[in-house]
Amino acid sequence: MNARIVDIETVDLRFPTSRELDGSDAMNPAPDYSAAYVVLHTDHPEVPEAHGFTFTCGRGNELVVAAIRVVAERARGMAVQEIADDLGGFARHLAADSQLRWLGPDKGVLHLATAAVVNAGWDLAGRLAGKPVWKLLADMPPEAIVDLVDWRYLRDELSPGAALDLLKRAEPGRAEREAELLHRGYPAYTTSAGWLGYDDAKLRRLCEQAVADGWDSIKLKVGADLADDQRRCAIAREVIGPDRKLMIDANQTLGVDEAINWHRGLAEYDIHWFEEPTSPDDVLGHAAIQRAIGPTRVATGEHGQNAVLFKQFLQAGALGICQLDACRLAGVNEAVAVLLLSAARGVPVCPHAGGVGLCELVQHLSIFDYIAVSGSLENRMVEYVDHLHEHFLDPVRVREAHYLPPQRPGYSAEIHRESLRRFSFPDGAEWA
Amino acid sequence: MNARIVDIETVDLRFPTSRELDGSDAMNPAPDYSAAYVVLHTDHPEVPEAHGFTFTCGRGNELVVAAIRVVAERARGMAVQEIADDLGGFARHLAADSQLRWLGPDKGVLHLATAAVVNAGWDLAGRLAGKPVWKLLADMPPEAIVDLVDWRYLRDELSPGAALDLLKRAEPGRAEREAELLHRGYPAYTTSAGWLGYDDAKLRRLCEQAVADGWDSIKLKVGADLADDQRRCAIAREVIGPDRKLMIDANQTLGVDEAINWHRGLAEYDIHWFEEPTSPDDVLGHAAIQRAIGPTRVATGEHGQNAVLFKQFLQAGALGICQLDACRLAGVNEAVAVLLLSAARGVPVCPHAGGVGLCELVQHLSIFDYIAVSGSLENRMVEYVDHLHEHFLDPVRVREAHYLPPQRPGYSAEIHRESLRRFSFPDGAEWA
Repeated sequence: MNARIVDIETVDLRFPTSRELDGSDAMNPAPDYSAAYVVLHTDHPEVPEAHGFTFTCGRGNELVVAAIRVVAERARGMAVQEIADDLGGFARHLAADSQLRWLGPDKGVLHLATAAVVNAGWDLAGRLAGKPVWKLLADMPPEAIVDLVDWRYLRDELSPGAALDLLKRAEPGRAEREAELLHRGYPAYTTSAGWLGYDDAKLRRLCEQAVADGWDSIKLKVGADLADDQRRCAIAREVIGPDRKLMIDANQTLGVDEAINWHRGLAEYDIHWFEEPTSPDDVLGHAAIQRAIGPTRVATGEHGQNAVLFKQFLQAGALGICQLDACRLAGVNEAVAVLLLSAARGVPVCPHAGGVGLCELVQHLSIFDYIAVSGSLENRMVEYVDHLHEHFLDPVRVREAHYLPPQRPGYSAEIHRESLRRFSFPDGAEWA
Repeated sequence: MNARIVDIETVDLRFPTSRELDGSDAMNPAPDYSAAYVVLHTDHPEVPEAHGFTFTCGRGNELVVAAIRVVAERARGMAVQEIADDLGGFARHLAADSQLRWLGPDKGVLHLATAAVVNAGWDLAGRLAGKPVWKLLADMPPEAIVDLVDWRYLRDELSPGAALDLLKRAEPGRAEREAELLHRGYPAYTTSAGWLGYDDAKLRRLCEQAVADGWDSIKLKVGADLADDQRRCAIAREVIGPDRKLMIDANQTLGVDEAINWHRGLAEYDIHWFEEPTSPDDVLGHAAIQRAIGPTRVATGEHGQNAVLFKQFLQAGALGICQLDACRLAGVNEAVAVLLLSAARGVPVCPHAGGVGLCELVQHLSIFDYIAVSGSLENRMVEYVDHLHEHFLDPVRVREAHYLPPQRPGYSAEIHRESLRRFSFPDGAEWA
């Protein structure tokens, strides 16, 4: 019963996705989807390992791996049951080194690394409890959920007491909503059709395939050339018809006024949301864009550095769709904070996914959101990209454009050993 | 004439300042002031080296050094004269790797590293021109200054054309202001008296010494315990009398409402500015604090991650003193952007200094600001802390509470070889 974290293993894992231009967009012409990966080894006989990672686009992944080693070292020797019993304390402990704090605070490489280690802690807690993380969360009493969050910089917007009230109001319907999701799954949309590197013929074919596969919301990458985007949106809208949702994503390439003009050039294609129109740091810029482009909703969050930023986006009315990222935020705890802040303002959370394993993670967060936080599916859906799932022990299961809740204990983060070896950079067989 | 960058050298430099509690504050109880240091080696016969660094608080410095290696690699092989002729292009090139961008964007470890390399580029350009960087900047035509800046995310607040007009308006008085600074120096204030780790007797003695040395503005660290802070502010105000300025700095320890209450508890001591009251990311929180505590000014910026954040602080009326950091921002170029944005809104820039070598760098920026941008000294002063200057080849010279403009070519960034060896971590004599 005194099992502890006894060793820390890291892997610099990179998939050569740039060879096919999968994942290409206006800001990221040729990413190599990568994961800075961590295994916490324990001396617990039944839970000898817990897994976590953060996603990156390739170069620089080694910096995040190095940062993970620094952060995870703070977990060495900790008792696994104590981590599981106080996941709020665990997350705060990992972030509490005052010298390291200078490197952020709470953003960039060190925050990405903290996400990987916090998420590994949640994987550990799920395995110990024999529950997937969404279920671990959804079974927590409201008081315990509130304790997960670091409220220091958030309470001027949402007090812990108000968060508790919100969670208590959602408590009565938890069992029904869980049963509903187990039966039907959580709604998804697809980005697989619309990468910027695909030509028109491939775009058309993939849109047709998406419709045939039952998707009713698809997303296109835009932002490099407006005339190209008009032609591509016309193709997509023609194929999907007037009733399905079409979203666009500029991946931050535009200035504020430029984004407003860009939307004007595409508005005739009935855009449901306009994602990452400009700098992800620009709360007031997004607020100006949101005022200009309604009823199209501004969507952003995959580069949302921390909960303090999301707090301001919500306060300023600067986003209509909150796209938190499971690894950009410092793991489950900070994601829970953003779910609570969003629910309090009535803003739907549609998490960013894709990359390496982001689908595997965020499904847990959205399922929890529906069961225990917002209690709503209105305008909510999780991004789905059909890349790289084959490397996971517990890959997402998508049926009729819905995520089926994962059943294995933990956070669905574990990658097959063979994949860890083969795609290890720079010495794995794929790179050597 | 085709001299190039031929090699890159980095040093993980750490000073054991935590042993004396120099630099202690409510958020940083025991920092080891450190520098992630880079030398660009060239094959230019007269300018064989250029130096740059970024400041950190100790642990994690190795991560910034590793990131510097990644960023500086992008400069390898570049022609030194081309760098000097297009410093805007140089800075944009260093930040233009789309895969690395995911790790920020434009913030955290990678941005700190970019600062070091950009600053080394400015040191190189100054040495080539035979001018200190402030003079290199102050001699540039307005058009060339505007070209230093990446305007993509800033032009909704300040267009390049408006920036040009601002610079042209300041052009006529440049020579007079330069002569004035060469004669009298640029105003400074001292933080050396008020570190949180000092006891009351030491605080009193240092305040008395500061008055004797001619300082008329001093700053105290606060934010751990209000009763302690009231006692310490009372001591400081008693010693400095009613006419000198007293500033306080909470180093981000407080929530928004808590900060407002804290100020209320100290207002009787006539606080000129309240620095870093809460999260450095919280534009709207600072705006609320500024509305509540006037005429005391909100001051922040040493953790201001990039120019997009400063843009919003200015737009929201969230700060009364802009404290940009020479290494937190991505070097001289982004600092120039923030000088321009601040001047356009009439907000005084009082740069953050202290640490390792920040005084050496920011004096160049403030001198340039007075000569060629804001043209004003009103409510402007540069922080001064008397730490670690002995390690620099061209240390700051402070006379009667004024910085005397540096005269050696370059950015005053070079540290003595003997110090680089002795304080190199973990193998230098000081650490081994």
